Formats: sequence, structure tokens, C-alpha cells
Amino acid sequence: MGRRVAQTSVGGPAGEGRRRVVIEGVAPEIDCGAFPIKRTVGERVVVEADIFTDGHDAVACALLWRAEDEEAWCRAPLVALVNDRWRGEFVVTRLGRWLYTLEAWVDHFETWRRDLGKRLEAGDDIETELLVGAELVEAAAARATGEAAWRLSAAVRRLRAPGDPLERAGHALGEELAALMAAHPDLRHATRYERELAVVVDRERARFSAWYEVFPRSTSPEPGRHGTFADLVRRLPYIADMGFDVLYLPPVHPIGRTNRKGKNNALVAGPDDVGSPWAIGGPEGGHKSILPALGTLADFRRLVAAAADHGLEVALDIAFQASPDHPYVAEHPEWFRRLPTGAIRHAENPPKKYQDIYPFDFDSEDWAGLWRELKSVFDFWIEQGVRIFRVDNPHTKPFAFWAWLIEALKAEHPDVILLSEAFTRPKVMYRLAKLGFSQSYTYFAWRNARWEIEEYFTELTRTSVREFLRPNLWPNTPDILTEALQHGGRPTFIARLVLAATLGASYGIYGPAFELMENRAREPGSEEYLNSEKYEIRHWSLERPDSLAPLIARINRIRRENPALQSDRSLRFHRVDNDRLICYSKLSIGGQPFEAVGADAVAAFERQRTGAAGTAGPGVPARLEGESNLILVVVNLDREYTHSGWVDLPLQELGLDPTRPYQLEDLLADARYTWHGHWNYVELNPHLLPAHIFRITQP
Amino acid sequence: MGRRVAQTSVGGPAGEGRRRVVIEGVAPEIDCGAFPIKRTVGERVVVEADIFTDGHDAVACALLWRAEDEEAWCRAPLVALVNDRWRGEFVVTRLGRWLYTLEAWVDHFETWRRDLGKRLEAGDDIETELLVGAELVEAAAARATGEAAWRLSAAVRRLRAPGDPLERAGHALGEELAALMAAHPDLRHATRYERELAVVVDRERARFSAWYEVFPRSTSPEPGRHGTFADLVRRLPYIADMGFDVLYLPPVHPIGRTNRKGKNNALVAGPDDVGSPWAIGGPEGGHKSILPALGTLADFRRLVAAAADHGLEVALDIAFQASPDHPYVAEHPEWFRRLPTGAIRHAENPPKKYQDIYPFDFDSEDWAGLWRELKSVFDFWIEQGVRIFRVDNPHTKPFAFWAWLIEALKAEHPDVILLSEAFTRPKVMYRLAKLGFSQSYTYFAWRNARWEIEEYFTELTRTSVREFLRPNLWPNTPDILTEALQHGGRPTFIARLVLAATLGASYGIYGPAFELMENRAREPGSEEYLNSEKYEIRHWSLERPDSLAPLIARINRIRRENPALQSDRSLRFHRVDNDRLICYSKLSIGGQPFEAVGADAVAAFERQRTGAAGTAGPGVPARLEGESNLILVVVNLDREYTHSGWVDLPLQELGLDPTRPYQLEDLLADARYTWHGHWNYVELNPHLLPAHIFRITQP
Repeated sequence: MGRRVAQTSVGGPAGEGRRRVVIEGVAPEIDCGAFPIKRTVGERVVVEADIFTDGHDAVACALLWRAEDEEAWCRAPLVALVNDRWRGEFVVTRLGRWLYTLEAWVDHFETWRRDLGKRLEAGDDIETELLVGAELVEAAAARATGEAAWRLSAAVRRLRAPGDPLERAGHALGEELAALMAAHPDLRHATRYERELAVVVDRERARFSAWYEVFPRSTSPEPGRHGTFADLVRRLPYIADMGFDVLYLPPVHPIGRTNRKGKNNALVAGPDDVGSPWAIGGPEGGHKSILPALGTLADFRRLVAAAADHGLEVALDIAFQASPDHPYVAEHPEWFRRLPTGAIRHAENPPKKYQDIYPFDFDSEDWAGLWRELKSVFDFWIEQGVRIFRVDNPHTKPFAFWAWLIEALKAEHPDVILLSEAFTRPKVMYRLAKLGFSQSYTYFAWRNARWEIEEYFTELTRTSVREFLRPNLWPNTPDILTEALQHGGRPTFIARLVLAATLGASYGIYGPAFELMENRAREPGSEEYLNSEKYEIRHWSLERPDSLAPLIARINRIRRENPALQSDRSLRFHRVDNDRLICYSKLSIGGQPFEAVGADAVAAFERQRTGAAGTAGPGVPARLEGESNLILVVVNLDREYTHSGWVDLPLQELGLDPTRPYQLEDLLADARYTWHGHWNYVELNPHLLPAHIFRITQP
Repeated sequence: MGRRVAQTSVGGPAGEGRRRVVIEGVAPEIDCGAFPIKRTVGERVVVEADIFTDGHDAVACALLWRAEDEEAWCRAPLVALVNDRWRGEFVVTRLGRWLYTLEAWVDHFETWRRDLGKRLEAGDDIETELLVGAELVEAAAARATGEAAWRLSAAVRRLRAPGDPLERAGHALGEELAALMAAHPDLRHATRYERELAVVVDRERARFSAWYEVFPRSTSPEPGRHGTFADLVRRLPYIADMGFDVLYLPPVHPIGRTNRKGKNNALVAGPDDVGSPWAIGGPEGGHKSILPALGTLADFRRLVAAAADHGLEVALDIAFQASPDHPYVAEHPEWFRRLPTGAIRHAENPPKKYQDIYPFDFDSEDWAGLWRELKSVFDFWIEQGVRIFRVDNPHTKPFAFWAWLIEALKAEHPDVILLSEAFTRPKVMYRLAKLGFSQSYTYFAWRNARWEIEEYFTELTRTSVREFLRPNLWPNTPDILTEALQHGGRPTFIARLVLAATLGASYGIYGPAFELMENRAREPGSEEYLNSEKYEIRHWSLERPDSLAPLIARINRIRRENPALQSDRSLRFHRVDNDRLICYSKLSIGGQPFEAVGADAVAAFERQRTGAAGTAGPGVPARLEGESNLILVVVNLDREYTHSGWVDLPLQELGLDPTRPYQLEDLLADARYTWHGHWNYVELNPHLLPAHIFRITQP
């Protein structure tokens, strides 16, 4: 039955009835603590909770946190906001799993101190009250040691000494005694929050990354020749110059022969057809082998090293399925589903058929053996130096499998990053993120209108989703050539690129198809590329003068130089009086995303900025002081026509003084503007540049 | 640390990895199941959850429920809504604690059946698929017994028999086999929701009640004489004629002499002053004794019995505090807080002082002894036949105490009803409700403007608050003579009465002050009554011609005759184009409140009503069929001026055919109107009647 707050026993109450403080409504907390939140090294965790007790007593409370492998908790006091809401924060300083929880207690001294003030105001006789206070301080003195004990004992004597009550009260109400008392609280009846909540701390690349997907077999400089890892090594400067930091390769394993697909997904392959890299496994090996035409394992290791030299990290595709020729089929027939005819069932989603692929049967009696083997695939590639994996269709494998796998992997290798390639129903995508995938593909590719972009990214960045799901935005993939890209031409390619790279701290493109604006679909209504690289080798003219590569390089540099673009937590949409224009900002302070956590925070931030008060108010963590970086993006979503409109900015909430002008530097177009007030005019011709990326400053 | 979804062990995965279905987002569920939801006997519990699995397999799921003291679960299938959301419901048929949970599993037969349909459409060869289906049915036959087993085996033979595949598929796709298969699911790898959630089921009066508070000592027919229980017995017909069902008495115990308060809360009492009934305890006894001037315990029992004869249930006030003369003070000095001077600290909330009352010290070392004694107070009065208690200031006693006390009381006496008299911060009020108080006082008395009434009651009735807090609305109490009542005259008294009695299925008044429109405050700015009955005996002229008693009687009759007014779950505010008018409806169908659970439900309800379809659609429980009762209330909130406006009703969502006229019967004024369409005119003169209570019908 439901967990009960109090236990009834025949003889009467059980347990400690003097724990009078309640802690509830803790945030962030995902599904009652079933799942960890996500952060990267150096990020803050801001924790809020409703904390209160019966009656009129004052409450004190602390945030507790530690790395899971450390024993001792760190503690910091929470500050009261309004309506029994409290807030605290900590910074996660290294990789791995961290824990946080809360503790709260009745603060008898603070209650006494507050009431003493009221009694003085009312002109009451306070002689007895001073003795009450003395008892509280005496008890604290007994809990203290060293100088603190000595100073507390002195305070006791002062409270009890005969003399002017007002003068003694003055001492008692002072900040010095308050601080001493706060440092020696009576925690005998403190309430510890019933759950310890977890944070998985990744490296920065889990939060901020630019991915480039390329088929190695298409990287040969000679048209028609199968590309190799060595060819890809020669391609690295081109990719690195564009400013990417993750180089993602489709599967690099032997490809099945049986039922191999031909060009354009033809049911029968020709003798020279190379097949789909996702039809994994052949006589040469399976998920731990390299397709010989690409090179050797040594070549692969050389590629990983050369990429690293260019600031690129190789990400591998993990697709858990087998071609009919995969060694698993003979060695582990029990891992596949059989038809009554004895044949193995190939993959399908009726009426669609994938005859070149067998799915694994996770309902197998030997499910545990299958799980272990699949984990060993990750282990193998981790051993080869790979730390980033793009996981193919994780939503077609059991959730429990991923939960187990990811926790096991990250326990051994906390630097591993996994991208979930699930384009499916929202709750399934969220579940996979909760289970531990570091990043997730999104519906970005199909969100084109302003209202749908605003609605979707507000859900991703302003709700609890942001605690467990890190979006990775792809305007195209080998499977997705959207209708917008097919028909929108250069303006749409640029607009989608700017949106992906600025809405998302992590984004990626499938190239060279993207930078060369490949837009031919296999047939009308299809999102499949014509002559898709999934089924054949392509040769790309990288030097084409209309290539978007220089623009991509510029955008990636803008991302690196502006911390505001390196996180999604501060994303905020702004009003524009023209629906074809979209406008949003990102803001960082001291390298941390500034989260608009409430009017208090904004007001205190404003005080900070204008110097109206020396210290940050309650609710604004002091560490948000520092250099700010404010980026404003405006995109024309119409691929044909110039649009103009008036943008409405909440200046104070963005940290700007509304009474003074501010400067906008267009980082895309090298133009500069000065704006006044909250309403300002923008105009964008999609055939020149469909977007502004402004950096806003106010000297 | 946080509960983990998967356990990692050195050797590999642990547990059952084939439980592939996820159950999350269960509603109602209060604070991760920490607290029960509330219902009354005969009410529905509608349960929703997000349920999904990996891949494309079909899912089936069941709602499980039982009374806690029964062993076997009842089961019913859930129906799919949209976006992986499922819904089911059950009815709680008797008092006490009930449990519910969910179970879900991959439905391999339904998956096969759905895919077979797609294969047929695509013209695929289905011979092998029929054999696959036969295996599934064969397995179900092995789980079945009797005729079902026989029929399933026959289906297997039919599937495997040679012959026209289309004909065999026709049988396989039929409803008969589907029903048989659904009745014999494969639950080996079913997921059981991790929590069992509780429902506390009260009797109807916990949901629907009309309270009348009266000071027995003021019920003597002779001015100046101390009223007795016998006097109150003679007053019963008057109270019953007004249609109330709960008769609530302030404390009836001996009143302290030490520091007794005089008239109008004077610090010093005169020799004849009767003191505050809340200063409990004297030489004659404490919380289990009767003030001799009121009568004896036998008189009290006679009052309880006589009240029952008039359809009235006596509710006692439980105020856990002691006068300095309470026997506890001598017998249990450890239950009180002492000053360093040795004196006991009286109640206070600095700078306010309550010298005639000692609070209990719940931080006492003997807290458990104190708890047991306080429970024995309830036990004592329960033995005298009392089942309803109004608990004074529960927010000044520990939450853990109430949790323990209420659970213990209700385990022994599930018919006990407790009203929480806490007027404090919202989270504290909500916590007390979660801990088990059956009803709660609210901020109603201070919500006067339309926007604040709408906002507050939307929060109480349209959010999860409605699952655990039952509002009890009081326009006045002995402590609360609002500014509105002081200055609003008869129109305000009537408007506040109508609001209380129709916004709230439970409401109460403090009389005869209310029906006689007593409006004199002790001083300007105070909400205290002048010559408050808290400190003196009052004599009331019940027969005054302007008494509101007849109107109250009418309103209570309207409440009894209209099931829509007997629950708060269907409350819904409607647009009026004049801010001084407020308009809302309540709707019941088949005696159950109709909850607007979504567009599906409304559409299906509409189909039901118009006979467009024979059965309720998914999402609309079939049991909502039955006679409907629709009440529309319009109140003029201005005490001086006539206001008119246009009311906008969402006709379809209220179950009305927008193409036909509908009838309104004003149950307050005996007038009848016919309205057409969604916009209609209303006009209210506050000096005649400031409110309409319409019953809407559409023959």
C-alpha cells in the first residue's frame, strides 16, 4: 500500500514525533527521484523546496550535496524566497554521479530573536525573555568547541548579567551572535528529506557540441573508389575548419550480403552495390569488426588519433541489429525470433519490410546473455578510444536494457556520451533521456512555423524536461531530407542552420549533403535522399563556390566565442509583430547560463548590474556575478520574401538599463546597430542573409 | 541515493529484463503516493497513466483496486486516450481505506492481429502469419480452462487447417477471438506499477454538508440566563427547518478562571463573566468534561440523540490547549513549556498574548504520552456518539501528530469526519488536508472580487488539490466578521450565502449572527464581533421579520434536491461581460459530478446525449449515463447597484444542444426563462435578490 507518513502501533505513536519540519515540493526532482538530473562539470544545481513547520516558529534549512563516492556531505544554508519556498545551490566540480538532499529544523534561537524584536517594539518587559535566550545560547555553547564555545559562553553571561535589559537585548540581537548560533544549530529533531536525489555529471561536450556526420566510404577523392579511413583522415582539415568537434560515422562494420539492398533501397542489389552500413555483420565479423574496404582496426585507431589532433572526437554509430550473415546468427540463434517455418523473422513494421536486417529478440530466454554481449560491443570500442556513441533506434530495445547498460558504462567510464537516435512518440523519447542518454535527437527538423518552434523549445528548455533531456538539433540526417530543405533553397538551408546552431547548444549536420545543399528527394512526398549514401558511394564537390562551409565555420566560431550559446537553459523567445520572424535570446553571466528564476532574481540581478546594492539579494546566487554575454537571434522563416517587424525585448530581465541605448553587433554580417528602448525595428532579406545573430552590449 | 531503475551487478544484469512496459505519470497520485486521495461512498475514482513499451508492440493494461482489508484485487481494462495516455475507473462502495494500482504488458496477440490486418491490406502472403497466430492462441488455450480453453483450441485448429487464408484470417480477426484472448493474457512479464495508491473513503457528509455553528450558552429563551443543552434541544426545530445537517458547538468543557477574559476580550473579567469556551479546563475537569452550566454528560447525550431525530449531527470543537486551571497543568507539568522563572509560558504570537491559555509543548520529552492522551479525548467523545469534529488551529500542532492521530482514529472509526480550522499559509493548509482532515476551512471569507473567487476556486477544484482537500466555505465565524459583511448589508449577506452554498458542496454559517445579519465590529478595521459570543452570552431575536432563515431554508432545499450542488468537482466558471457579475455551473450525471476530463470525453458525452452513437466512446465511463442535473449560478457582487451582462455558456460541454432552446428555472425566485444559443442576458438588482440559481433543462 501507499507509503504512510505515520505508523500506527497498538501502543501509540512510533518513532520521533518531534521532527516538526516538512520538506516537500523539491525541484529539480524527476519522477519522485527515480531518475537523475543532468549537469556538466562546473555547472550549478539550483535546488528549491517548500519547507515549513507548524505554528509560528522560525525554520532553518540546509542543502546537502556530495559526489557519490565521497562520504561527507557538503552543506550550505537555503535562503527563503516567498510563500514557504526556499532555494540553495551547489556546483558540480567533477565527472560522475552526485547526490543532493535537504535538511531542515526548527530554529528556536531565530524564533526567540525575532520575537524579542517584536516584544521590544511593543514595550514589553523582556527580563525573563533574556533568560530564555540565555538557555538557548548555553545549549549552543555546549555543542560548540574552541573559540566559538568561549564566545557563546560569554554571550550567556552577558544575557544573564544584571544591567540594562535594552543593552543586553542589543547584544543578543546582533549579527555576531546570530552567526555563531546559526553555526551551531540544534539538529536533534531535524528533518532529513526522505530522498537523496542524483545528478549525473558529464563533460562539457555533453552540453555543448557541434556534430558532423559523414560516410567514410564517400570520402575518396577518386569518384567511384570506396573511401577509407585514410581518406577520411585527409578530409579532417576540411571538417575541422568548419569548426565541428564531433565527427560521427555511420556503422563501420562488415555489411551483410544476404538480401543486401541496392541503390535507392532496391530490393535486389547489383554485384557492386555496397549495401547499407546498418545491415551489420558478415563472414568478416560483426559489431566488433571493421569493414575491410574501410581499413583495419589500426587504421581506425589512427583516424581517432588524427581527428583528436584536429580537435575532433570520433563518435560511432551503435545499431543493435544483425544482417542474416552476422556471426551471431549462427552462434546465438536463441537471440533471434523464429517463424513457425524455422526461418528467422526479419525486421519489419508492417507493411514495411527490412529484409536485410534481423532484429534481436529481447524477449529471448537468454535476454541476460544478449544484454551482456551488447554491452561488450560498447566496451570494445571504448577500448579503441571512442567515448561518444550515437545509438540507433534505442526505442526499439527495452528501456530496462538501456537503464542497465548506461549505468554500467558510466560507472566505469563517466566520460562516455550517448546520443539517443529516437524519432518517436514524446513520452518514449523522454523516457530514454531519463534513463541516461546524454543527448537526444528532437523533432526540430519538422518544426518550421514560429509558433511550433516556440512551443517546442519552451517545453524543452523551460520545463523539467531540461533537467534530463539535452536536445541535439539536426536540420538533416541521411534519413531526413525535410520538405522545407527540398524546396527552400539556400535561404532555408541557412535559416535552418542558424536555428539549429543557436536554439541548440548541441547540433549537427549530415555532410557534405548539408553544406552542398543537396535537396533532391527520391520521390515526391518522401524524405529520403535520391541516390542516398545509405545504399551507395557518393562523390561530393567540396570546393563548389556556393558551399555553405565558410558560413558554417563562422557560425561555429560564434558559438565558441559566446558562452550564452553553449547552454539551452537561458533560451527565451521574444515578441515580434510579424509571424514570419522569430526572435530569441540566450544570456550567460560569468560563463553560467542565466536562468530567469523569478522576479526576485531579476530584480536582484538588476540591482547588481546597476550597483544599487552591494550584494546579490536572496534568490540570486552570488556567483552569477561576472561578465555577461547576451545573444539575440532573429530569423526570417520565409524563404522568398523580405520581412520586417518590431522586436519587443524585456530589457530589465535581460540585464539592460532601459533608460540607456545599447549596442548590437551582428556577428553574422559584421554590422553594428544602436538600439533604444524595448521596441526596435528589424528587416531581413532571405536572399542576402535570413538571420541576425546579435551580440548585445551596453557599456 | 535515488532509487535506481536498474541494478548493476558485477556479473551482468539482475532481475527480470523482459518487463518491457513502462507505467508513469499516474494520476491521481499525491506527492509520489505519500498521501491518500479522498472519496465518499459511491464515488468514482478515475485513474490515468502514461503506459508504453519499446518498439511497435501493442500494449494492454489493467486497473487494479481493492478495499485494503480485502485480499483479492478487482481488475478492469484501461482504455487508450491519446499520446500513450490511458484511463480507467472504479467505484468505492464502502467506508475505509482502498488501494489501487496498475498492471501493463505487451499484448502479443493484439500486435499480431493489428499487423495481420496491415498485411492483408498490403496483399502480403499471410500463410506463415496464420501459423504464428496459432502459436499465440495455443499458448492462451493452455492458460484457459473450461469452455474458453475449448474454444481457443478450436481457433488454433481453424488457424492451422488448410484452406483459404483469407477466410481463416477473417476468423482470427473477429471480435470473439479477440475477447477470448484478452481474457487470457500472458502476464509472465507484466509490469506492476511500483506503488499502491490509497483512497480514504468517507461517508457522503464529508463531501456534502451544511453546518450551523451555535453557542449553546446563548440559546436560553430568557435573556441573561446561561443557556443549556436542554435549551439547545428546544432550538433544534428552528435549525433543522433551515435545512442544516451538522450542528457545530464551540467547546462545551469547563472554562478556566485564572486570567479569564471579560466581555470584548477585556484582560480582566467581571465576577459574572463567562469567559471564552476555548480556555478549556477548570476544577470541574478538562477536555472530557462538560461545563456544569450547560448540563451533564447525560444531557449532552440527549442533545446528540434529539439532534439526530431532526436530521442534525452534532459536531464538537477540539481545541488542544489548556486554561491555567486545567487538571493537566498539575497532573502533567511536563506537557507545558516553562520559563526560567518556573512559570508556565502562556500562549502568544508576539506581540499578541493569550494569558488565559497554555499551549501544549509538543517538543516535550513525553511527546508520545501527550499524543496518546490527546487521542483519548477524541476516543471519549466518539464513545458519546460524536463522529464529527471541528479541530481548532491544527496548524499550531505538529503535522506528524495529526498524521498519526487521524490514521489511528479512522482505522477504528472510518465514519469520523474532521474539519481543519487552519487559516494560515497555503502550503500549511494543504499539508493538513493531505494528512487526513476530511474538510478544510478556506480563504473564501476574504475572496470578494470575481477574479479572486475564480482563481481560488479553480485552484481548489481543477487541480490535484481537489483530490485531497474538501473545502468548507464559511461567510462568517465567531472570529471572522469580514469587512464586506460589516458594510454590505442584506445584499452582501445574501450574495455571500449563495456563493458559499453553491461554490461549496460543504459550507457553514455561524448563527444566529448570520441569519440576523449581525454586522457590528468591535472597532473599525477589526474582524471581531462587537459583544462577541466568545466572551459573553447573547440573546438573539430569532423571529425578526428580516431574518434570512427562510432564504437559508430555501437554499438548503435547493442543495438537497440538486445533485450537481453536492460535489465540487464539476465547478466551472463562465464568461460574463461585466466584472461585477460572476457566473458558474455545476453538472452531475447519474448522480455523479461530471468532470470535464478532455475533449474526447465531451465529444463522447455529446454523442451519448444526442444518441449519435449507441455506446460511450473511449474516455467516457459508461456509468456517466443517467439523468443529468445542471445548475447555473449568477451573482451580482455589487452591494449597491443593479448590474446586467451577457453570459457565455459552452453549451456542448454542458451537454446542451446548441441548436435548440433550453429552459432555465430560477430556483431562488421561482421564475422561468428560455434561452437560445450561447450568449444570453442577465440582470440582477441586489436589493431584490443579488443571485440567480438556475436549473437548466432541455427537453
